[in-house]
Amino acid sequence: MNLTKKSFINGQWQATQGENFNSHNPVTNQTIEQYPSATVADGASAVSGAKTSFAALKKLSGIQRAVFLEQIAIEIEALGDDLLNTANDETGLGLVRLTGERGRTCNQIRAFATMLKEGSWVKASIDTADAQRTPPKPDLRRMLRPIGPVLVFPASNFPLAFGVLGGDTASALAAGNPVVIKAHPAHPATSELCMIAAERALDKCGIATNTIAMVQGNTLELAQSLVVNEDIQAIGFTGSLKTGRSIMDLAATRAKPIPVYAEMGSTNPVFITPAALAARGNDIANGLAASIAMGTGQFCTSPGVIVTLKNEQFQAQLIDAVNSANQGYLLHPSIAAGLKASVDSLVNNDNVEVLAGTTLAADSLKTPNSLVATSAQAFLTDDTLHAEAFGPISLLVNCQNETELVAVADAIHGNLTATIHCQSDDELAIPLALSLEDHVGRLIVNGYPTGVEVCASQQHSGPYPACSSAATTSVGSDAISRFTRFIAYQDMPQTLLPVELQDNNSLQILRQVNNNYHHDAA
Amino acid sequence: MNLTKKSFINGQWQATQGENFNSHNPVTNQTIEQYPSATVADGASAVSGAKTSFAALKKLSGIQRAVFLEQIAIEIEALGDDLLNTANDETGLGLVRLTGERGRTCNQIRAFATMLKEGSWVKASIDTADAQRTPPKPDLRRMLRPIGPVLVFPASNFPLAFGVLGGDTASALAAGNPVVIKAHPAHPATSELCMIAAERALDKCGIATNTIAMVQGNTLELAQSLVVNEDIQAIGFTGSLKTGRSIMDLAATRAKPIPVYAEMGSTNPVFITPAALAARGNDIANGLAASIAMGTGQFCTSPGVIVTLKNEQFQAQLIDAVNSANQGYLLHPSIAAGLKASVDSLVNNDNVEVLAGTTLAADSLKTPNSLVATSAQAFLTDDTLHAEAFGPISLLVNCQNETELVAVADAIHGNLTATIHCQSDDELAIPLALSLEDHVGRLIVNGYPTGVEVCASQQHSGPYPACSSAATTSVGSDAISRFTRFIAYQDMPQTLLPVELQDNNSLQILRQVNNNYHHDAA
Repeated sequence: MNLTKKSFINGQWQATQGENFNSHNPVTNQTIEQYPSATVADGASAVSGAKTSFAALKKLSGIQRAVFLEQIAIEIEALGDDLLNTANDETGLGLVRLTGERGRTCNQIRAFATMLKEGSWVKASIDTADAQRTPPKPDLRRMLRPIGPVLVFPASNFPLAFGVLGGDTASALAAGNPVVIKAHPAHPATSELCMIAAERALDKCGIATNTIAMVQGNTLELAQSLVVNEDIQAIGFTGSLKTGRSIMDLAATRAKPIPVYAEMGSTNPVFITPAALAARGNDIANGLAASIAMGTGQFCTSPGVIVTLKNEQFQAQLIDAVNSANQGYLLHPSIAAGLKASVDSLVNNDNVEVLAGTTLAADSLKTPNSLVATSAQAFLTDDTLHAEAFGPISLLVNCQNETELVAVADAIHGNLTATIHCQSDDELAIPLALSLEDHVGRLIVNGYPTGVEVCASQQHSGPYPACSSAATTSVGSDAISRFTRFIAYQDMPQTLLPVELQDNNSLQILRQVNNNYHHDAA
Repeated sequence: MNLTKKSFINGQWQATQGENFNSHNPVTNQTIEQYPSATVADGASAVSGAKTSFAALKKLSGIQRAVFLEQIAIEIEALGDDLLNTANDETGLGLVRLTGERGRTCNQIRAFATMLKEGSWVKASIDTADAQRTPPKPDLRRMLRPIGPVLVFPASNFPLAFGVLGGDTASALAAGNPVVIKAHPAHPATSELCMIAAERALDKCGIATNTIAMVQGNTLELAQSLVVNEDIQAIGFTGSLKTGRSIMDLAATRAKPIPVYAEMGSTNPVFITPAALAARGNDIANGLAASIAMGTGQFCTSPGVIVTLKNEQFQAQLIDAVNSANQGYLLHPSIAAGLKASVDSLVNNDNVEVLAGTTLAADSLKTPNSLVATSAQAFLTDDTLHAEAFGPISLLVNCQNETELVAVADAIHGNLTATIHCQSDDELAIPLALSLEDHVGRLIVNGYPTGVEVCASQQHSGPYPACSSAATTSVGSDAISRFTRFIAYQDMPQTLLPVELQDNNSLQILRQVNNNYHHDAA
């Protein structure tokens, strides 16, 4: 497909005159094409258009929004191999992985559509009036409502599932909000293709084309101008701790602060009890190595820390497994530079021993899988050892005894996940679980942190620095809640109420009526 | 009762050596007593104790926490007239109001207990495993869990309902969190009595006394040290925009930012359509005057802005009603100073006309009810007219036509509430409702904003500057959610799962199991 290198602003493809940046092929390690950034004025125009679209968007029913989301999924699939090949050129992730990621992307869009059709996600609640009470009790009805234009910063490591039409965009649209997307500069052609799919869906569903905007660019001033734009009501971001924190800090300075949902750094520690090590050490070593190497370690849930009692046999098995695991390509020279800085910090730490890998090629993004080791005492006293190293590397923390193992669990920073490998009736699992749940969004037993199931019970979040908002999730059904707020309507006539709150419950959704949950009329 | 003037720190009453401050009787306008502030070290000790208590508190069942909350309510009531008289001395709100407020305080505590006993508030969700799927689907289970020590800054205007054992403390405890309360310096004796009630409940229920701490004080350094204390996981605040924003800003600078739930300034605009004015103008004038005067205008939902088409008859009725309404006492000289600054700003504004009141006594906290007026054009162009004046004063915004009325609705800032007075089949209500809901947490038809019903469908919040977090509520059942976060458990053995997520559903709570809601086993 012939791409325009334009941004989609206020419902139209527009040539932009900002600073140029290059797309890059990780496999050849060569520049692909030059793209122009959108300017600050382009960004303002995109937000202005999105704001204008909100009043009409609010009037669409849940069913209408569901049909629109399903059309987006259809249009993504209709891009066919063009999308997969383009994404592969820009990310080097391989067609098998990208085919799977496209499936996940369309599945999560369709999952939101299914939720909208069912309708109960709005958490409707009704308390009817009681005129006899002193003082009289009013009629109160409450539900989740959209908030207005949402700004989305997609990630580089999932060019589709966390891309222009990824989970943040899908959940913001599902909730009924216009979306302004600042495309990731690592995959501009993939972003343009996704925006083409979105435009086709908007057209076919008769929704105003300024409902979704996509600006290309890699300038700080563009990103910052969007973060402080007073018409933006919330921000979704997936990426590094440094960038995420800078967005949080800038948003906090706004005249009207807004929520920032940033998913940032996580080391996803994996704890292995002595009993599990004795029973399944080699299997666990192989499982960990596969998890470390998956996506060339560029998963937010990559296992970056492994905690066991010191065990030479397991360490040897893990070294073998890490050395044997497939090698892949880092996404971009900037990611390679970040990984090199992290590896250098580890290798130059007197308390860290190199067990495998760590030598990064200067002229290639193909990257060895790495394993380094330290002691529990070092880990407990050196905060630098808790920092995420984004790439296929893990830090083995060797403990002297079970007390140290639990102390390490107590000391881990905020993470998306923690994992416990244990045996049945393994008493050590109890203190580990009770401690680890205070630090993570998801606690896994006898599995591996990579692989984030999209379902109602998923919690993809965690205490800072994993995320800016530990209470919400960026994956799974409840991701939609981030881009809503509750509104209560007091003594509102039926004709003015949203359909979800009208007495007759024509949508037959689950509602809490005078403290009882049911699908009936009020 | 003989009060100690001590703070309750790490489970014990401790004398503190910080700067002294005075309690004050609003009716006599005289100092009552001198109190010592807690020091920064005292505050740190309070937080440290609260943190220590968390592991044991997490192990209490919902029923056990419910019994504890009910005991708190019993102990508040057992304080009898001592509590009411002390609060009346310190606030001048009168025994009738304070008796009602005590009832509300105990009712909201008991409402949380009822929720805990029923149990479904944890929003449990279960997605069972599917080993046959490619890739295999894990078992995922998710629910709301407590977060750790919560810092509460009570308000001066509701010494009981938003006091030491008010809604923030009750909801944080209900969720399973330790609480550190920085008592409001306007009512230290009332605060000590409430803490005595809490201590008795802790003792009788066998819960560690360091689970709740209460520090007296009026120093900035104490408050700031608590906001940045790294063991505090969330903050609840009710008070002025200036103080609330300073807490938000300081919390945003923490190494690990935390959520701040601040309820701040709101003008609660009331829109009256021409049809309603014609049909019920005099009734509405009387209702508004009563709402303005309620609590001497010191309600977060006091109607500070009234918007109508210019109508001499209604204006005259409103002036009469405001002049006839009961006069009360402001809570504190600092509130009087704040109101005087707000009134001066209005009176000195060339576009504002004084219709009633506005002359505050220099030597008394008894305060006239006031009414001032401006034009829609002035309101639309002068942001100072949107600022909350905390006290019994309202700004009448006179519009030339319906277009201006809707333009004013479009222009209002974030508010807790907006109200529409309209007639049935009043077409003007439709654009007003659609516009106003974008700016408020609660939209009221044909009522008055004062009076905040405590129930599941209440939403006491609103976009900034009304609140820091428009998505959550500080009144009603869902206030508990603020002090929780979701945690997901993947492939967790039954014995390690919280009881709410175990297969058998022994609590018979409502759960979402494989996308179906029911009370059955999984």
